[in-house]
Amino acid sequence: MSIIELKSAPAIEYAYSVVGKRESEGPIGKKFDFVDKSDKFKMDTWEKAESEMQRIAFDGVLTRSGYNISDIGAIFAGDLLNQCTGSAYGLAGFDAPYFGLYGACSTCAESLILSSLMVDSDKLPRAAAVCSSHNCSAERQFRFPLEYGGQRTPTAQWTVTGAAAFIVGKKSGFHPRITAVLPGTVVDKGITDISNMGAAMAPAAVNTLTQYFNESGEEPEDFDAIITGDLGYEGSKILVDFMKNNGYDISRNHYDCGLIIYDRERQDMHAGGSGCGCSGIVLASHYLEKLKNLDVKRILFMATGAMMSPSSLLQGLSIPGIGHLLKIEMLSK
Amino acid sequence: MSIIELKSAPAIEYAYSVVGKRESEGPIGKKFDFVDKSDKFKMDTWEKAESEMQRIAFDGVLTRSGYNISDIGAIFAGDLLNQCTGSAYGLAGFDAPYFGLYGACSTCAESLILSSLMVDSDKLPRAAAVCSSHNCSAERQFRFPLEYGGQRTPTAQWTVTGAAAFIVGKKSGFHPRITAVLPGTVVDKGITDISNMGAAMAPAAVNTLTQYFNESGEEPEDFDAIITGDLGYEGSKILVDFMKNNGYDISRNHYDCGLIIYDRERQDMHAGGSGCGCSGIVLASHYLEKLKNLDVKRILFMATGAMMSPSSLLQGLSIPGIGHLLKIEMLSK
Repeated sequence: MSIIELKSAPAIEYAYSVVGKRESEGPIGKKFDFVDKSDKFKMDTWEKAESEMQRIAFDGVLTRSGYNISDIGAIFAGDLLNQCTGSAYGLAGFDAPYFGLYGACSTCAESLILSSLMVDSDKLPRAAAVCSSHNCSAERQFRFPLEYGGQRTPTAQWTVTGAAAFIVGKKSGFHPRITAVLPGTVVDKGITDISNMGAAMAPAAVNTLTQYFNESGEEPEDFDAIITGDLGYEGSKILVDFMKNNGYDISRNHYDCGLIIYDRERQDMHAGGSGCGCSGIVLASHYLEKLKNLDVKRILFMATGAMMSPSSLLQGLSIPGIGHLLKIEMLSK
Repeated sequence: MSIIELKSAPAIEYAYSVVGKRESEGPIGKKFDFVDKSDKFKMDTWEKAESEMQRIAFDGVLTRSGYNISDIGAIFAGDLLNQCTGSAYGLAGFDAPYFGLYGACSTCAESLILSSLMVDSDKLPRAAAVCSSHNCSAERQFRFPLEYGGQRTPTAQWTVTGAAAFIVGKKSGFHPRITAVLPGTVVDKGITDISNMGAAMAPAAVNTLTQYFNESGEEPEDFDAIITGDLGYEGSKILVDFMKNNGYDISRNHYDCGLIIYDRERQDMHAGGSGCGCSGIVLASHYLEKLKNLDVKRILFMATGAMMSPSSLLQGLSIPGIGHLLKIEMLSK
């Protein structure tokens, strides 16, 4: 496990975000590109709605970029649905090479890491990274059907209804650039509570982030923001505490996309947002904007994933986690 | 979609195959590295058994190679289980960066493509590609619980109980080498019959293979074997027919791993083997041996995947397919 420097500093050239009702009503709700307040995206099942979100997101970023589909060397895409059907069906209409990924909620970072590696090495001229989650398809697959109306525990997170698409390439000019990546390893510390995913993923986040600082020699204060994907309140606390034990104080500049997306007081999503879409849409809208405006110039972006399935938990297994990290910077012109 | 040439010709340095009872009793049954005739691999559920197969396969290839885990730049792994738990749990104990993939039965080729691209570009010193399927976990997830004892249709294929692990690197010497790759696009021609997966995947195979010949200028007779992963009897017939329509006669040198793994007369697995493990174990044992013995010197290896889920079929959607292709050669010393 070691940091891979990207000498050519591939640019996140374009991004596009698609969200549902609750996300559009949150603190950064105005920043998203496409909103469907019905959460249905004109489809008759939640799973089809999620695929449609991926289609809209990729179509949106392609249109915005002005590229033709033949300009896209490959699409790296994934989601939370069984057999990753959100991605396969959503992107089936586009004639570009397709690499299906499964990194649970880390998929946004996983897809950006692979895209940037392929572009940096000139294996592909540019690549697209796409991910999604939908609250209604995820809840019924992982927990309970919505109609059941179950009470949620205080540590439960709310799966974000959101899809994000990015195009990574070598465009010149003033763009957020991926200058290093650190893919994570699978870490299983024995957490079994599916209603406390933050706690399950935090050890993997600690593992990757500690490794990053140890190996790079950089310090937390070298960054304007250290951003995690969806650790939520529970996982974020664990991350900050454990990092302090490891000698790194990230308490002043750690942010979690799961805590940015909803308003805790007004919307009450319990421990925050989660899902592949969570880190994807917050990066695509909020943080890429902040980078372009130079509100932040140098960030670490790490999305974490909980790699269990409903079956594996029923069979008594604990939740393996993973954290994939990217360093994203605005470099001098 | 275009062919990517790998100038450094990364080697498939080592491989290891793990199988169950039926695979060990087939025509190439003696070639596999590890057999458990109970299919249980000392576990108490089929899903845990599948994870254990991945663990044994990766541990096997690592031991055989003599590398330490820290020598492995990353593991690219996937399987058919919901949330790809076969891979996540099976490989959680190894401290190496992990990229989870979902390519359905194309996963073996997808993981080898990504491994070889990373090695060729020197982003990683070497990478591991791991995949698995287990008949009993797949049947109850995708079709019926085994206890139901349902009658299988004549076009049905038999999910292979098998796991394969490969190490791709830049070792010098006489090894099978990956000299070009062509990642596939998602193709959906409207097939809805889950008991005829070969037919669902064949259009994607036709798409990738035609593209390969069109773009490379090579002809089918330039290869000693054109190997597909698990099209089975039905899909293979469709592939050969459609390729002929496209101007390429592959009838004399097309082989399908799903037709190699079982004896049609003696074992009667209907339309042949399938699953991520099918192409994985046949490549790892049978074809790598044939390459090293120079029985074949130049092959195309294309694994195809059917990217549906049980839910997507219940919701009336058809089966999207994908075909990922690699050119593997024994180069002069």
